[in-house]
Amino acid sequence: MQLLMVSLNPLATLGVSSSDRSKWKRKSIVTLALTILTSSQAILIVWSKRAGKYEYSVTTANFMVETLKCALSLAALARIWRTEGVTEDNRLSTTLNEVIVYPIPAFLYLIKNLLQYYIFAYVNAPGYQILKNLNIISTGVLYRIILKRELSEIQWAAFVLLCAGCTTAQLNSNSDRVLETPVQGWIMAIVMALLSGFAGVYAEAIMKRRPSRNINVQNFWLYIFGMIFNAIAIVIQDFDAVANKGFFHGYSLITTLMILNHALSGIAVSMVMKYADNIVKVYSTSVAMLLTAVVSVFLFSFHLSLAFFLGSIVVSVSVYLHSIGKLRR
Amino acid sequence: MQLLMVSLNPLATLGVSSSDRSKWKRKSIVTLALTILTSSQAILIVWSKRAGKYEYSVTTANFMVETLKCALSLAALARIWRTEGVTEDNRLSTTLNEVIVYPIPAFLYLIKNLLQYYIFAYVNAPGYQILKNLNIISTGVLYRIILKRELSEIQWAAFVLLCAGCTTAQLNSNSDRVLETPVQGWIMAIVMALLSGFAGVYAEAIMKRRPSRNINVQNFWLYIFGMIFNAIAIVIQDFDAVANKGFFHGYSLITTLMILNHALSGIAVSMVMKYADNIVKVYSTSVAMLLTAVVSVFLFSFHLSLAFFLGSIVVSVSVYLHSIGKLRR
Repeated sequence: MQLLMVSLNPLATLGVSSSDRSKWKRKSIVTLALTILTSSQAILIVWSKRAGKYEYSVTTANFMVETLKCALSLAALARIWRTEGVTEDNRLSTTLNEVIVYPIPAFLYLIKNLLQYYIFAYVNAPGYQILKNLNIISTGVLYRIILKRELSEIQWAAFVLLCAGCTTAQLNSNSDRVLETPVQGWIMAIVMALLSGFAGVYAEAIMKRRPSRNINVQNFWLYIFGMIFNAIAIVIQDFDAVANKGFFHGYSLITTLMILNHALSGIAVSMVMKYADNIVKVYSTSVAMLLTAVVSVFLFSFHLSLAFFLGSIVVSVSVYLHSIGKLRR
Repeated sequence: MQLLMVSLNPLATLGVSSSDRSKWKRKSIVTLALTILTSSQAILIVWSKRAGKYEYSVTTANFMVETLKCALSLAALARIWRTEGVTEDNRLSTTLNEVIVYPIPAFLYLIKNLLQYYIFAYVNAPGYQILKNLNIISTGVLYRIILKRELSEIQWAAFVLLCAGCTTAQLNSNSDRVLETPVQGWIMAIVMALLSGFAGVYAEAIMKRRPSRNINVQNFWLYIFGMIFNAIAIVIQDFDAVANKGFFHGYSLITTLMILNHALSGIAVSMVMKYADNIVKVYSTSVAMLLTAVVSVFLFSFHLSLAFFLGSIVVSVSVYLHSIGKLRR
């Protein structure tokens, strides 16, 4: 280490090291924010389920989330314009060449969400929760193939463990039924995992394509298309309910908190994509899943199962292996 | 690799490489033998349980196992004496200094087996199966402390995964009861794991203390003390049954096969201790546990649970990590 500190140009060395440290700090903060927001998101869902059935239209809530994210991005931009002035990197106007790829993640999620309604013909809800862990594997594979970023052997092993550990932690007495899923269910689950992984990887590619571009501008355009696609979803799925009962029917305090939370976690995901990567996102949401269960013990007097402990051990070892398994070139 | 093949003395290089290869081959064969014998042992136990209750005294069966191992070691020695003559390394006579440590593993197992009767006051049999996985951790820790052999960070992580994976594979709907084990049960389980780990590590120390000593002589003395301690166990636990119903009461074909199998696996364990180590033994018996379950699907139409699949994945990754995690010095 000391050897590395010696350089022909001490200032340059200092510069790189302090910039690396600030990058690492920013990466840590956005990861932590995503973990905490994802945990509290799951806790809000449990709370809202305890409080009663979902009486609002999920599609309108999703639309509100996109709108709120858009508004927050604009507010952040307005502040930046006031202090830094309008530059090439933070101006809102865009070119067709830049914006053409922005609808893709939102479009992929739309298809995935539509498929979600059909998979329940083959798999029950707890089974779907188990199958969703396939996302972990699909994200890793697509990250490797599309973004061409390499993971070391140990990091691949850690990724398989993350998937196995998360699934183990979610096991309960009915989990074995998922093994009876018909082949159509498996195919749909795999397609949905690929769509979700592809959307994530694509979002990362967009955010990193032009590193100097202000993240709030990138978010604004992403969320604009999110609003459009969610408006389409309202028309397809909930037109009658919205027309008869109104857009905001069934909204409660919890609904509002959930929308706020989803908006903030959405922004945190964007930041993780820009300043870290999809792998960090997957680890962050997996650890959040475990945190949620632990917090639920205190909030809702949940019981933790032996499977949960074992899964948590495997996930922890996976996090450890991922961190020590960095490629040495 | 090609660079390594070049040497000032090609014959010496060839000698080392061929000796290394023959060592590796011997290590693989004894490991494979232990894995197959351990699997078939578990299958015989399932078969005997299906065939009816244990009607024989377990202590007399254990005594017969030790006697058979002793006889097989003597038979092997007799053959070696005929072909190679009696040498310093293969003569049966011993010194007090050599033999004084031989009773220790058998004595530790005796205490462990006696404790086994008391732990069932606190834990049920399936719970005990789960707690027995603590052996994996205790063996790793004692291997490190007593034999002073180092494992790399990755190998330690692999060892924790092996324990978690084996436990996961054994999970069933009643497993959560083990979390209600009272503190006395936990203490006894930990003490038993330490006794068992200590016995294994001690046996390895004995086998490797004098590498040139013929393994059959070492086995002979180990098993002589095994016979003595099992004779004591017969007197303590089954004196009445043996006095009234005879030594071989309740023996059947399965009992005979089980004794034969235990004797052969006992010899395989000794060979693994001499030519490989405790870590290899733990991996071998863990993989055997998974093999047993898979074979049982065909033999006894067992159903494999999702937990079994997940545990198997974790164990497989652990084996992989152990093999790539070798210390590079």
